[in-house]
Amino acid sequence: MTAEIITIGDEILIGQIVDTNSAHIAQELNKIGISVHQITSVEDQHSHILTTLEEASKRADIVILTGGLGPTKDDVTKGAFCAYFEDVLVRNEEVLAQVEALFKKINNSPISDLNREQAMVPSKAIVLNNKYGTAPGLWMKKGATVFIAMPGVPFEMKALMELEVIPKLVREFKRPFIFHKTIRTFGLAESALAERLEAWENSLPKAIKLAYLPGSGTVRLRLSGKGEDRELLRISIEGEFEKIYPLLEDILSNGLGEAEELPASVSRLLISKKQSLSLAESCSGGEIAARFTKIPGVSSCFKGGLVSYATQAKEDILGVSAGLIASHGVVSGQVAEKMAQNARKIFKSDYALSTTGVAGPSKGDSQAEVGTVFIGLATPQGIFSKKFEFTGNREQIVERSVNEAFKIILKELL
Amino acid sequence: MTAEIITIGDEILIGQIVDTNSAHIAQELNKIGISVHQITSVEDQHSHILTTLEEASKRADIVILTGGLGPTKDDVTKGAFCAYFEDVLVRNEEVLAQVEALFKKINNSPISDLNREQAMVPSKAIVLNNKYGTAPGLWMKKGATVFIAMPGVPFEMKALMELEVIPKLVREFKRPFIFHKTIRTFGLAESALAERLEAWENSLPKAIKLAYLPGSGTVRLRLSGKGEDRELLRISIEGEFEKIYPLLEDILSNGLGEAEELPASVSRLLISKKQSLSLAESCSGGEIAARFTKIPGVSSCFKGGLVSYATQAKEDILGVSAGLIASHGVVSGQVAEKMAQNARKIFKSDYALSTTGVAGPSKGDSQAEVGTVFIGLATPQGIFSKKFEFTGNREQIVERSVNEAFKIILKELL
Repeated sequence: MTAEIITIGDEILIGQIVDTNSAHIAQELNKIGISVHQITSVEDQHSHILTTLEEASKRADIVILTGGLGPTKDDVTKGAFCAYFEDVLVRNEEVLAQVEALFKKINNSPISDLNREQAMVPSKAIVLNNKYGTAPGLWMKKGATVFIAMPGVPFEMKALMELEVIPKLVREFKRPFIFHKTIRTFGLAESALAERLEAWENSLPKAIKLAYLPGSGTVRLRLSGKGEDRELLRISIEGEFEKIYPLLEDILSNGLGEAEELPASVSRLLISKKQSLSLAESCSGGEIAARFTKIPGVSSCFKGGLVSYATQAKEDILGVSAGLIASHGVVSGQVAEKMAQNARKIFKSDYALSTTGVAGPSKGDSQAEVGTVFIGLATPQGIFSKKFEFTGNREQIVERSVNEAFKIILKELL
Repeated sequence: MTAEIITIGDEILIGQIVDTNSAHIAQELNKIGISVHQITSVEDQHSHILTTLEEASKRADIVILTGGLGPTKDDVTKGAFCAYFEDVLVRNEEVLAQVEALFKKINNSPISDLNREQAMVPSKAIVLNNKYGTAPGLWMKKGATVFIAMPGVPFEMKALMELEVIPKLVREFKRPFIFHKTIRTFGLAESALAERLEAWENSLPKAIKLAYLPGSGTVRLRLSGKGEDRELLRISIEGEFEKIYPLLEDILSNGLGEAEELPASVSRLLISKKQSLSLAESCSGGEIAARFTKIPGVSSCFKGGLVSYATQAKEDILGVSAGLIASHGVVSGQVAEKMAQNARKIFKSDYALSTTGVAGPSKGDSQAEVGTVFIGLATPQGIFSKKFEFTGNREQIVERSVNEAFKIILKELL
């Protein structure tokens, strides 16, 4: 049971948007035991879409398309889809009623001819109800291959996947189970890690696939398997990981070897210790808070944060003295430590993290170079700070500051 | 001059990561006049990579690959690349020296055999220097098609693109110019917008392509063209947009019709008015601050923000009284307004935005339903708040809160 994903839209090919739909669809298919072997993105162009459909049908049992189903002229997927199936468009009264209801609710206006065209669907298609938009999903078959087309607007696509596509795939196909488990290590290079694990890697059963996923300062290890019995799969993959935990003791990112992202590990450890964190962010601009609050349930360990972007906010609200800033510079270990210390006080938290640095592109009024970042941590035991000199652009410097900050608090908690 | 991008890695096909490399590469190629016609993502699997290379070579002048060049066993791109060119791997002394230097600098350890293999490259390849990692870029030719392989780690790939790939493409190929311009509208559905612009759309020159890009509450319009003379292209595309500005007066997102994201419009308007913004974020958890501080130069109009996640932080730091919270609930218009009002005071800013709401998945200790969000705005003239009832998961509710918050301050500034 193999699938391919085709995402359609000039905006992807010119890099104006990142195709996030594919990752979501792939994840959801994996959960029900369907592997994705190829993802193809093509322009809004009739003949290219046709060729891509033909090629995909040779390789896959299921082909999922997104994009190009909208009401405007640059949306050509429905036409290409129809041509591929040698079908004609007919009006679907249910879709029309749905589009009319949606328009009434959202715009409080009658629908136009363009919207009415959204109710034209290939005559052989099974229509999938789009709860949030005017373009319905389409389910068609050619030979042994199923083709599913969905609009490209992410939240419409996600609702269609959840409410229509996945349930129908589950009903219609017998599928094996796919099981992935990932653990995260840090502090050791990918190659050194591979050497440490060489004997184990060579002894892995053929059916279990190992992947190394290097990131900034971390390497994740993923084991994947496919089989008829989910429980057996899980036991066998977890059993393989059990064998290496003793080898990885010094570099596992959370002491438990779970597949967590750093913020989730920090949140889990804080909650289990009944402790709390607050933040004083300067150069990271709220990104640590934003990343941390993505974790559901984080409110029980996160007190809050201050984005003290202007120096004045550091003085007035955080109470970092103008004298300290004048003598050491706003980008300094002393200021980072004072920020953390005072954040810990005003938020009444057990720990407080701080960042101060220059994300660029220009130095602004700072004495420090672009890329210089100090991260401070206040704990119940004391305060310290660490200096980093990151390279890269503004976005990269912020990204690395955020990662290092989470690593610092994680190490402290472990 | 057409290009294709191939991204390689099981992690993409199982949806563990979103392929952001393709968008970056596509953008950079577009800037130098090279269009991307297809993006293909395939697994770390020798024969599938080979087939994909063969198919791409039939369609494209330039094929760019990323991923699978690392030192571990799941990295098979170099082998497949070598097989495709019927070439053999030879040791490259310069790469070896570079890998050794990198290891000394970062790990302060001698390199291992696995790392030494990174210096093995196809004998016919031109080696592109990877400043930040051990896997070099490779540039090879077969027939008329150029193939370029780069590692998949985003910051290594980006540096290779900037320092090696783009300069070499510019030197070796004569290219036309590609010009895109995008404007953003809000408040009108895609179909209604298309009807309003119908006559104009039909009169567009064949060489200029129009795209509608619907988002949450906004529709962007993009015109794209390709030609020998960049200035002529620019004038002709901007001339086409000039014709419709009068038709869009009520729905242009920034009154100037530029291709800005909302945070950039807000920052530009604030700076031009010499005014400043601060934030008091609860349910948006720092995401507004993080989004706003992505804009270079924003420090001249952004004072800072408070992420008052715990109710206690709203009381202690923002000075929202326990009585107000008790009588109206922490998720209420009254609290949103007080948060904005007090943030404006403590940050000494001209404007202050606030959010309070329930992002879910559970209601927590709030009385309000998941999805209920109040956004407050304090201005030099007064204070108001707006209630929203968003649907979707935690991430979507935060995303919409952030968008609506930027729209509220933008409308106020216009």
